Amino acid sequence: MERNIETLVKNQDLIVKRREQIGDAALKLFSRKGYYQTSVREIAEASGLSIGSLYSYIKTKEDILYLVYQRIFTSFQEGMAAAMEGIEDPALQMKAALEATLKIYDEFQDVVLLLYQESHALGKKALLHLFEIDRRYVSIFRKIMEKGNQKGQFRVRDPNLTAICILFLCAVWALKRWNLKGYSLEEVIQDLTDLVLSGVMDDKEKGPI
Amino acid sequence: MERNIETLVKNQDLIVKRREQIGDAALKLFSRKGYYQTSVREIAEASGLSIGSLYSYIKTKEDILYLVYQRIFTSFQEGMAAAMEGIEDPALQMKAALEATLKIYDEFQDVVLLLYQESHALGKKALLHLFEIDRRYVSIFRKIMEKGNQKGQFRVRDPNLTAICILFLCAVWALKRWNLKGYSLEEVIQDLTDLVLSGVMDDKEKGPI
Repeated sequence: MERNIETLVKNQDLIVKRREQIGDAALKLFSRKGYYQTSVREIAEASGLSIGSLYSYIKTKEDILYLVYQRIFTSFQEGMAAAMEGIEDPALQMKAALEATLKIYDEFQDVVLLLYQESHALGKKALLHLFEIDRRYVSIFRKIMEKGNQKGQFRVRDPNLTAICILFLCAVWALKRWNLKGYSLEEVIQDLTDLVLSGVMDDKEKGPI
Repeated sequence: MERNIETLVKNQDLIVKRREQIGDAALKLFSRKGYYQTSVREIAEASGLSIGSLYSYIKTKEDILYLVYQRIFTSFQEGMAAAMEGIEDPALQMKAALEATLKIYDEFQDVVLLLYQESHALGKKALLHLFEIDRRYVSIFRKIMEKGNQKGQFRVRDPNLTAICILFLCAVWALKRWNLKGYSLEEVIQDLTDLVLSGVMDDKEKGPI
């Protein structure tokens, strides 16, 4: 799944390790300063690499953005796994998944914004890999709904389509920030969870959650 | 509400009329060719104005983008008014509003994409006016939910917050197009309407709509 960023370095383990370093450093800088305000030189410094060494692991600043998206997906998967651990009920899984997603989008809102505003700047190959990451995000929500449908707890016509919509809906916190001034993350989690859970559940199954 | 774009022309009626002409022509071109691929010269030609004359009504290409947003809001209001005419039931109003919004977003998807990707390129004043337009969109959905709450038909904790979320959700059709390949507009309208209507309605009120 790792995007095949061309590099001059041939040792695969070292490449993976260095890219993690670069992705971590860039994620912190992008979240704090924004993508455009962060220079490649600063990323090199924060990664503990010389600029020359950095450029043997990545070719462009867009490559770094792609590494950051991969790091976020890893955080997302870890956050979701932690949030859903031991939860078997699809409604409670959905609740946990929404909360985890919104918290991750809160933490990395600058990068979520970038994802929507700048992904068209990525090359075609990077874009295709980004879509693949997106599909994996979506599949987490799809599986919860498929399980809910099987148990007769949910009533969702097309779990994949609805999963795409729900995941997109979570981005409201990053993309509609100006409109949401005055609302706390907790309020958005509450109302969005109410909307989605009531939205997907079979009527007869509904009750206080 | 009209943004105070500085111009050299002082006749207010003429300014309004010419800006409508420019906005209409630009909307067609942006929707067909995209914002970046459209030159100011082409917009002048399609408006039936010389380039010099055009520049006495607008100052920058961003000004034209703003005019386009205003035109879309007008279309949106007209579409909503037509869709909801004679409908008093809040659930049916919501259904009609979602369908009208998704159809408008389908028609102008390129501009909706622009709105999310390029609005940060607008100046602060234009941005504030854009937020104002956005708030008016939101208020249409908010009012439907307030009415539904009053009638005991809906159960929405914060109609303004939920309206922001619902309007944002409709943009999935423009912003997640690659993910929605294979789905028709009709399917998205159906599933999104199911999700939202089940989501906002009070359980005891639910039935086939």
